[in-house]
Amino acid sequence: MGQTIAEKIFAAHLRDEPFPGTRVLDLDRVLCHEITTPVAIADLQWRGKDRVFDPDKIKAVIDHVTPAKDSKTAIQAKMLRDWARRHELKDFFDVGRNGVCHAIFPEKGFIRPGFTVIMGDSHTCTHGAFGAFAAGVGTTDLEVGILKGVCAFREPKTIRINLNGELPEGVYAKDVILFVIGQLGVNGATDRVIEFHGPVIEAMSMESRMTLCNMAIEAGGTCGICPPDAVTVDYLWPFIAEEFTDREAALADYSRWLPDADAEYDKVLDFDLSTLQPHVTFDYKPDCVKPVKEMAGTRVDQIYIGSCTNGRIEDLRVAAGILKGRRIADSVRGIVSPATPQIFRQAMDEGIMDVFMDAGFCVTNPTCGACLGMSNGVLAEGEVCASTTNRNFNGRMGKGGMVHLMSPATAAATAVTGVITDARALLKETAA
Amino acid sequence: MGQTIAEKIFAAHLRDEPFPGTRVLDLDRVLCHEITTPVAIADLQWRGKDRVFDPDKIKAVIDHVTPAKDSKTAIQAKMLRDWARRHELKDFFDVGRNGVCHAIFPEKGFIRPGFTVIMGDSHTCTHGAFGAFAAGVGTTDLEVGILKGVCAFREPKTIRINLNGELPEGVYAKDVILFVIGQLGVNGATDRVIEFHGPVIEAMSMESRMTLCNMAIEAGGTCGICPPDAVTVDYLWPFIAEEFTDREAALADYSRWLPDADAEYDKVLDFDLSTLQPHVTFDYKPDCVKPVKEMAGTRVDQIYIGSCTNGRIEDLRVAAGILKGRRIADSVRGIVSPATPQIFRQAMDEGIMDVFMDAGFCVTNPTCGACLGMSNGVLAEGEVCASTTNRNFNGRMGKGGMVHLMSPATAAATAVTGVITDARALLKETAA
Repeated sequence: MGQTIAEKIFAAHLRDEPFPGTRVLDLDRVLCHEITTPVAIADLQWRGKDRVFDPDKIKAVIDHVTPAKDSKTAIQAKMLRDWARRHELKDFFDVGRNGVCHAIFPEKGFIRPGFTVIMGDSHTCTHGAFGAFAAGVGTTDLEVGILKGVCAFREPKTIRINLNGELPEGVYAKDVILFVIGQLGVNGATDRVIEFHGPVIEAMSMESRMTLCNMAIEAGGTCGICPPDAVTVDYLWPFIAEEFTDREAALADYSRWLPDADAEYDKVLDFDLSTLQPHVTFDYKPDCVKPVKEMAGTRVDQIYIGSCTNGRIEDLRVAAGILKGRRIADSVRGIVSPATPQIFRQAMDEGIMDVFMDAGFCVTNPTCGACLGMSNGVLAEGEVCASTTNRNFNGRMGKGGMVHLMSPATAAATAVTGVITDARALLKETAA
Repeated sequence: MGQTIAEKIFAAHLRDEPFPGTRVLDLDRVLCHEITTPVAIADLQWRGKDRVFDPDKIKAVIDHVTPAKDSKTAIQAKMLRDWARRHELKDFFDVGRNGVCHAIFPEKGFIRPGFTVIMGDSHTCTHGAFGAFAAGVGTTDLEVGILKGVCAFREPKTIRINLNGELPEGVYAKDVILFVIGQLGVNGATDRVIEFHGPVIEAMSMESRMTLCNMAIEAGGTCGICPPDAVTVDYLWPFIAEEFTDREAALADYSRWLPDADAEYDKVLDFDLSTLQPHVTFDYKPDCVKPVKEMAGTRVDQIYIGSCTNGRIEDLRVAAGILKGRRIADSVRGIVSPATPQIFRQAMDEGIMDVFMDAGFCVTNPTCGACLGMSNGVLAEGEVCASTTNRNFNGRMGKGGMVHLMSPATAAATAVTGVITDARALLKETAA
């Protein structure tokens, strides 16, 4: 019987099968940030097991609240920093070198097709964009991963989603994943891996694939996975050039992770996206989605462009394309958080930061901050945010606040008008 | 009998003298930020007096924690925002347009020679750099100021400080004021105005004069005042060009605020600064100062460049001059907070932000944040910060943290080496 991508990765990393259906896998990466890792560190210390299985395979970053906003977050950062230094982690990203975990780790070439990756963070599924199996885990799993380099998973059942057709202009990966979550529901992929296939994926950049896979968890999925292809190889090439004679060789090697033609899926869904509209969320669940035109005119107080979902250079370019020569509405405040220092630097070089600042946006340092209501853009009660992030849970960006998830294009257009706006309508209006 | 600058300003603004020695002055500016003003707003509302004496003379900004870090600060910001809109304040600087109060208000041309200025903020004395009387006040005074446009002060006694000689290269306004505070002591100017005079002041830019006056309060001074001169007029010219036929006319007009030759001072101090060394603080009081060479080698964890004291373009230029082509030490984290969006934008244009980022600094949005341990760079217990800010009180930048105050040059050099370093020594070493 053929195998899915996840089944191939599981088979290649199988260390043990203690119970039927439970697979203990060897880990290629244990990723750490300052919110969930210190709890694991403290427990390891308490147990007298303050060790790491491999200082090269564990990567750490301070990203959720950075620079520290109070004594508590300063201590969390210090615990991670001291631990990273004590165990001589090869890669630790401190204040100034740090960015949003799911942006900076791929950017540094740490994720490869076929890898097993865990992190104490819900959106670890982002890394599936590289054809890896990447899952968010709890602190106990994280702790075992740090100490032993293994993690136990149930055998992976996979939902295959074929995204057919060609995305219309002005429709982005974020619109695709919002639409897909709307179709699946927030529990539609629970305990399942989602494998994305089809021409829409093939045409996507790695940034867009990360946006897509980032929100697999919002449908309950353990991981979203894109098949590795030439786009994957091109993105990784600066990091793998010494491993392969040429890109074709890399592609050939990575193709061993592609699913077999006779792989067995839990479910197969086909969507034609040729007429997909930009989507936004309403209410407090990510599967409450509507075409933007049905939400158009909804007043907002804040616009947030950033996060592990949509804080990459591609996202900033799209938003800046709409903001160029425009000012944001007096009634709103705009916040943009480039996801990493490299993205920040590149956006400066491309004049994108000028556009944001001239439009009236606040440019913050790279951080997760506002997305989860922890810093740099928390809402007051009754306030509404147009956000490129991944969760619209009640209170997510601040107690009593409402979050509408959307693409960077829709967010930028909304910033200009002060109400939820289809960017295509705004551009058409201006051209007319 | 001749008059000091403050006496002239008091005489020109005298509304009432209810008791001997107590002067009620008309106010030209009531400046507001989101930490102290909401308390006054709430009380005015509770008293049924939710009014403002003049929406043109009251200026407001969100600066201490911005964007909001939690629900509490989001509510504080919203209270100020709603109030500014409700009363149609001519100038309110919301997220994205906002910067550190004592940097953005002068930058917008709001402060003029001879003005009376109050704010619910200790470092309001900064604005004395323009030949204004500017004082930090408590919430009750702020509330009365907002409602009535007046504030009561004791009759001003003035300490005149003549700063003679010429500052050596590599010695800055920050070094001057640290030295002066060291001489005066933290209570040396309590209930006094400090008038700065002499060739050192005359040679200073407005930015440097703001640095100087900013810390008058650290010697207990109600206000630090520099006599208005051609430098003042040049700085203000974009804002006053329509009021005067030419700069000479402006200078002539402003010279009415100069002290009389026979003005009577509480005390006159003369310092020759021709051999002044760069200074840094030790311990927890701003008058605990030493030449940097006596503190050289002291290990630090964090470097902070910013604040109302030293977050202006001149400060960033000096720091970038030292950082260019260098990386900060692996053992430290560097944070730079340009004080206003205009400074941020200009620093981008001049390539200064590239230098900071390439050196490994975290570039935050404009905010007071770390200076008072409220956001964006709070220290953990036991950590040490080299900081261009104005207060080294115990716990100021975070409970259990130690702060060494210094100039941007010293801070930049310290960032490179990871220990307190005389920038001149670093530059010499590199040149050799």
